[in-house]
Amino acid sequence: MIIGGNEDRTDNKDVLQKFVELAGGLDSPIIVTTAASTVPEDVWEMYRIAFDALGATDVTHVRIDSRADADDDMLALKLAQARGIFMTGGDQKRLMAFIGGTKMDRAMRMAYLENGACIAGTSAGASGMCTHMLAEGKADLAPEKGAVRLGAGLGYVTRVIIDQHFSQRHRLNRLLSVIAQSPFLLGAGIDEDTALIVKDNAIEVAGTGGVTVVDCRNAVTTIADIARGEVPQMQDVRLHLLPSGSRFTSPAAGGALADFIQYLTDRT
Amino acid sequence: MIIGGNEDRTDNKDVLQKFVELAGGLDSPIIVTTAASTVPEDVWEMYRIAFDALGATDVTHVRIDSRADADDDMLALKLAQARGIFMTGGDQKRLMAFIGGTKMDRAMRMAYLENGACIAGTSAGASGMCTHMLAEGKADLAPEKGAVRLGAGLGYVTRVIIDQHFSQRHRLNRLLSVIAQSPFLLGAGIDEDTALIVKDNAIEVAGTGGVTVVDCRNAVTTIADIARGEVPQMQDVRLHLLPSGSRFTSPAAGGALADFIQYLTDRT
Repeated sequence: MIIGGNEDRTDNKDVLQKFVELAGGLDSPIIVTTAASTVPEDVWEMYRIAFDALGATDVTHVRIDSRADADDDMLALKLAQARGIFMTGGDQKRLMAFIGGTKMDRAMRMAYLENGACIAGTSAGASGMCTHMLAEGKADLAPEKGAVRLGAGLGYVTRVIIDQHFSQRHRLNRLLSVIAQSPFLLGAGIDEDTALIVKDNAIEVAGTGGVTVVDCRNAVTTIADIARGEVPQMQDVRLHLLPSGSRFTSPAAGGALADFIQYLTDRT
Repeated sequence: MIIGGNEDRTDNKDVLQKFVELAGGLDSPIIVTTAASTVPEDVWEMYRIAFDALGATDVTHVRIDSRADADDDMLALKLAQARGIFMTGGDQKRLMAFIGGTKMDRAMRMAYLENGACIAGTSAGASGMCTHMLAEGKADLAPEKGAVRLGAGLGYVTRVIIDQHFSQRHRLNRLLSVIAQSPFLLGAGIDEDTALIVKDNAIEVAGTGGVTVVDCRNAVTTIADIARGEVPQMQDVRLHLLPSGSRFTSPAAGGALADFIQYLTDRT
């Protein structure tokens, strides 16, 4: 469950409610980790109140302030038993610096891939799910070569680069900057208060915004010929705009969306 | 010459200099019309200083405050003899309400189509060049059915809908709103301080920004099935991003860009 940040936590809480359902319901063991955040207690307090209001009964906070915190056997055991793991926002570089390659990382991966737990990430937590993680970067008015730095992420989403707060922060040019450079990957921009739910061979968009899919696989660009900071010419970029309520199953979706579903979950 | 607004008027003035060249040089007769503006004298003063600084010697202001002003034989004669006509910004609805169908309109069309004068429009003046003029509308975070009102424009650009201040005001969703509804038209978003120059069978992008071309001819959308104000699902939107310096000639450009050039100037 890939969430674009700023999901409603006080009013209808649709995205969080969906997460609780996907995690198995109100009594399922759920872990909220604030590893990405520099104000973990404040963030946890917000989610504690929200999940409490939804009626979830077994929600635990995992605060991580160092790699040692994440390399803990008891923590790994707890994560392996969770049915839902929620990664909050903050900074995806901090998230990966603390948990990448640790016992926590391996336990979460096992919970997701082997136990079928629901892994959710919002904002930094969403970016961190990618193998090739959009770490930082800015491209306001046009795509720019080299505008975006990638980092190594958790690898749940293998061939798609996720960006978040997408429409609200006008990040199409930022996402195009990186996809132009790596057109064998697809890009997905998730709006605030919006979740892209990937389950089996299907995707669904929930919440109040939408998901923008960027496909440059057949685009013709000048990215290889220009200098850092220059604006590439780009022809034949394909866009798909999937508002809330969109549902697709592969291979029935066909074409680029079937590829998108496959790219999200590819393990080869 | 279709300009996205806010072209430099005090520093390098590249776009205005290009206009003077396309109009035939420093001693060519040039007319600046402020018909779109509610503060015509202020706008004229700005352009008077800019063209003066560029060394243009024969620049005249045409202020239009009513249809009667625009239905004047002497004015029509002056316009028919101009080598360059520059339409300033303001409100494209005001522009068309005053000059649409008048002697001024016919004289400008003749100057453009028969005498080969350079017609430039910036901001409202750019929108007004289209047959199907983007009159007004707002779609901030996603395309929305019915978000944009069209109006009848001057008809120099027949099958492309122009939007201006494009990247600066984040208008991709606004342009997609109207192109989703009328996918037989192409869309072109022009950035500020940027000109799309259409001449013979060629286009060129000048200035500091770029031009975004939106092509929904093969897109699959739900626009016909949703209510006003709802967000369409859109698959297979094609985008082309043409930064300053881009040049294409039809039919050499091939594919969608050759079509774009043809759509800009189609007279059939």
